[in-house]
Amino acid sequence: MKLYEKLADDMTEAVRRGVFAAGERIPSVRQASQQHGVSIKTVLHAYALLESRGIVETRPQSGYFVRDAAARALAPNASPSGPDLGRQPGRDTPPVAAEVDVSRLVLSTLRSIRAHDAVPFGSPYPDPSLFPWRRINQYANAIARRQASWNLIDDLPPGNPELIRQIARRYAENGMPVDPDEIVITLGATEAINLSLQAVAKPGDTVAVESPTYYAMLHAIERLGMRAIEVATHPVHGIDIDALARVIATQEIAACMVMPNFQNPLGFQMPDARKQQLVELLAAHEIPAIENDVYQELYFGDARPSTLKTFDRKGLVLHCASFSKSLTASYRIGWALPGRYRAHVEKLKFLNTLTTPSVPQVAVADYLRHDGYDRHLRHVRKVYRQQASIMTALVQRFFPVGTRVSAPQGGYVLWVELPASVDSMRLYRAALARSITVGPGMMFSTRNDFRHFIRLNYSYPWTAQTEAALKTLGELVTQMA
Amino acid sequence: MKLYEKLADDMTEAVRRGVFAAGERIPSVRQASQQHGVSIKTVLHAYALLESRGIVETRPQSGYFVRDAAARALAPNASPSGPDLGRQPGRDTPPVAAEVDVSRLVLSTLRSIRAHDAVPFGSPYPDPSLFPWRRINQYANAIARRQASWNLIDDLPPGNPELIRQIARRYAENGMPVDPDEIVITLGATEAINLSLQAVAKPGDTVAVESPTYYAMLHAIERLGMRAIEVATHPVHGIDIDALARVIATQEIAACMVMPNFQNPLGFQMPDARKQQLVELLAAHEIPAIENDVYQELYFGDARPSTLKTFDRKGLVLHCASFSKSLTASYRIGWALPGRYRAHVEKLKFLNTLTTPSVPQVAVADYLRHDGYDRHLRHVRKVYRQQASIMTALVQRFFPVGTRVSAPQGGYVLWVELPASVDSMRLYRAALARSITVGPGMMFSTRNDFRHFIRLNYSYPWTAQTEAALKTLGELVTQMA
Repeated sequence: MKLYEKLADDMTEAVRRGVFAAGERIPSVRQASQQHGVSIKTVLHAYALLESRGIVETRPQSGYFVRDAAARALAPNASPSGPDLGRQPGRDTPPVAAEVDVSRLVLSTLRSIRAHDAVPFGSPYPDPSLFPWRRINQYANAIARRQASWNLIDDLPPGNPELIRQIARRYAENGMPVDPDEIVITLGATEAINLSLQAVAKPGDTVAVESPTYYAMLHAIERLGMRAIEVATHPVHGIDIDALARVIATQEIAACMVMPNFQNPLGFQMPDARKQQLVELLAAHEIPAIENDVYQELYFGDARPSTLKTFDRKGLVLHCASFSKSLTASYRIGWALPGRYRAHVEKLKFLNTLTTPSVPQVAVADYLRHDGYDRHLRHVRKVYRQQASIMTALVQRFFPVGTRVSAPQGGYVLWVELPASVDSMRLYRAALARSITVGPGMMFSTRNDFRHFIRLNYSYPWTAQTEAALKTLGELVTQMA
Repeated sequence: MKLYEKLADDMTEAVRRGVFAAGERIPSVRQASQQHGVSIKTVLHAYALLESRGIVETRPQSGYFVRDAAARALAPNASPSGPDLGRQPGRDTPPVAAEVDVSRLVLSTLRSIRAHDAVPFGSPYPDPSLFPWRRINQYANAIARRQASWNLIDDLPPGNPELIRQIARRYAENGMPVDPDEIVITLGATEAINLSLQAVAKPGDTVAVESPTYYAMLHAIERLGMRAIEVATHPVHGIDIDALARVIATQEIAACMVMPNFQNPLGFQMPDARKQQLVELLAAHEIPAIENDVYQELYFGDARPSTLKTFDRKGLVLHCASFSKSLTASYRIGWALPGRYRAHVEKLKFLNTLTTPSVPQVAVADYLRHDGYDRHLRHVRKVYRQQASIMTALVQRFFPVGTRVSAPQGGYVLWVELPASVDSMRLYRAALARSITVGPGMMFSTRNDFRHFIRLNYSYPWTAQTEAALKTLGELVTQMA
């Protein structure tokens, strides 16, 4: 073990033992270097590691402090708690706006998948081997060959016109006519969501999110120094509109971020009537809605579901999507339909990353125009639907009594409620030791809720190895229950 | 002309005539649609266009307002003013922190280059035809072929390890040993600068910049809702350290953003002694320095110049750079060396754009390892040095008395002071009508300074056409003088 790792572990242990309490300042780099007789550089490494582990945080010009969450998470008996799959209306605790910091947990989960080359039940991404990446690369190569050279002035925001046309065409074909002039190409849905939120709210504002919510929403809130207020979300109907109305009645809400189609992690498809209700409630209060629709093409039903945008009359819905979950993750092509905030979002795109690289934009446009995107999608939907039912059946077989499983209507993740006594962080670590990853429930809330929940990815091909891994996981849960 | 363009032009005219004054609210979309008998959609288009022209700005939930800058810029006789090439100490007006909004002017300049396929004297980017883009594409294709598939977990922040190694190697070879563990790969220097600033300052904070300053710095400040305070910058010595000291003595400065090597637009190389002085002044006040070193490889001298990082002892320098100006613009590979803020910057990278696409990272790493980057750079430096002197000579020949030209020591831009009576915005529009672009001086300051300055790009091959274009430009200036 490297010296700085040793130091980081000692400090972690000290926090666990309460030597350094939540919010408390730990020794300065200089002090630590003297106390432990190591170099400044080693201490800086150790502290960086502690920070990336989420144990401490820096406060500019004032040093390193123990994070509350860390102190809680490390406390000997952090009592597991939390509701059923989603929040049942009524059973919900009165919501309170909270500061957000889940990104470290998410990043370390992603890293562990990569580092351990583990069974990727914990991955948020679809199995890329299902994607036509070879075809898309061929288009990219053809472009690179025929194009003398590219510079940053090509395809500036709002983006490549042909790509924008193709995206608009797909919406139209799916019965959702959109104005091409409204589309702004972004670096994946991540940037679309970030820019949309920045366009409608400012640091310190409170943003309503689902509970559980896809952590990408929490990341955007965290990035901009806003506060999240969680609203009960039903595993079938989606966000509890009455609960949201109560929140709006009692406090200032700058925006509402939801995922009405195949929500990550619950997988529901919000019924049209409720989508309309939600849009109307928010419109009545002039509250912008940021809609994450990245799974729009991954439906198990007969047709692409409607969106909040479908029911938007006031340009208050900022609709965000990408090709990362259905065509190519590595090209990072996303877009926003920001309604009345379009000009602002386009400007923020320019300020944030200048432009989305040209070749990927054109390559995806060429693929959409000339190739078999729909054929590809039909195949992917079929595979996901099959693997969803396989994994559901096997979870029910391998996991102990008291386990409950979501019934996704699209996408590629399962939300699993474990017996209340199981700590998904402990499970996560135990599974990782066996080269299996899971998505710990704590990633999906700013509170300590969903501690006994996990998210499982079923997009990867079902093999004897994956089946064995799921069995192992079931055994670990049974031991911990 | 489209209906919404017509409407936008009428509104612009109304602002020019003072029908709508600076800061005044223009009619709501609904009102305008009734007044002009056009659809809501047309008005939204027109207003978006007005916003992208910088005439109006939206204020969430309250409508569209005439921007002060627009009112000023459009005013019949906006009096030209501003100092010599850089600010001479003493001649400087007492600095005041200002809100920042230059991005619209910059974006519209870039768009016009693209749209008019104009002579790109106004371009901020180097001529891509000088870049080994074909070689790099070959590496990218080879990677795409040998790699089964990519997903977003590959090369997560801090980035691809081999690319990081190669970047560290180049620094070491140039006598600037850096710790590879400090490097965070970003989406171009744009993101490196954005994340660095976000890591050290918060909205509302005041950031010290040079005057004139590269507008990328102003973009970062604008994006984060901070304020810029401009400090006199000498065309040869760089930022006036005494003036900066006076600013620091009188107010809270959250960070200082500078470009010590081949500053855009002035082109100077800050002497080592002054770099060290600057680092020590800031360190004495624990003020982080954000160093933009994107032209690090484009020196005209014998060796790569030192950086602020070279003299940093406290980890307070956040050093930002990229390959966009020296190898490939379209791959958008940049990086940050954030010193003590490293963990925070890495986290912000993850929150901002998740990850920098893998294939470009690996392709650039492969090129650096196996190909002729140094040979390519030697050629580019020679070309730029020659073209700098050609353009300087011709500006002196074609432009009227009272014109002064910078003496760049690297990079590929010339800063030209025109006779005080020349309005570079008028020149910009007149030149554009003849398919020639220039960089208006107003992009380089938050104040109305440098109105009679332009930036000219000399990276493009020198032809009879470019020479004729420069002659035309000189004639326009002579008419306006």
